[in-house]
Amino acid sequence: MIANTPKTPYYYAVIFTSIRSNIEEDYTSTAQKMTDLAQKQKGFLGVESAKEEIGITVSYWESLEAIKNWKMNVAHTEARNKGRSTWYKNFKVRIAKVERDYEF
Amino acid sequence: MIANTPKTPYYYAVIFTSIRSNIEEDYTSTAQKMTDLAQKQKGFLGVESAKEEIGITVSYWESLEAIKNWKMNVAHTEARNKGRSTWYKNFKVRIAKVERDYEF
Repeated sequence: MIANTPKTPYYYAVIFTSIRSNIEEDYTSTAQKMTDLAQKQKGFLGVESAKEEIGITVSYWESLEAIKNWKMNVAHTEARNKGRSTWYKNFKVRIAKVERDYEF
Repeated sequence: MIANTPKTPYYYAVIFTSIRSNIEEDYTSTAQKMTDLAQKQKGFLGVESAKEEIGITVSYWESLEAIKNWKMNVAHTEARNKGRSTWYKNFKVRIAKVERDYEF
């Protein structure tokens, strides 16, 4: 649910915002596979996701190196390519350093 | 839809993740008011929002000062207090500096 991330500073957030095409073609199963696979990566801290008109997935990571390693993962690269060509009309990825947080 | 933010570095993201209580009581109208009001603040750059099991709202800002000024806004403070007492079971706010972004 809400990701249980460590104390700030510093951990990193990858904010992935997307608008889907209307093509399903393995989208749901691949999205689930990528979530499962991300959780096995070194430096993965948690993920939060919701979708209405736009989809927002925020994943949290220990370091920029962990984010880079996940980006270079072969299955993830294939999924991203399929995302560009098929599943998404638009998307945006923002990599951000979390400086402060608070909760209730 | 997907927020049209300026070049990195540096702008800031406020990642607000929440789980609602089952109490409606002006929630929807207040959420809309806060979105409208945020957009009038100095330094506001854009907002993205989606809700399923959890709600994720990411707002983008020019500076930490702009984020602080919005936090101190009286109507926003009242809404946050009502959020804590009534509308949310849990929430988490993360303030992060966007270091890189790319889009498609």
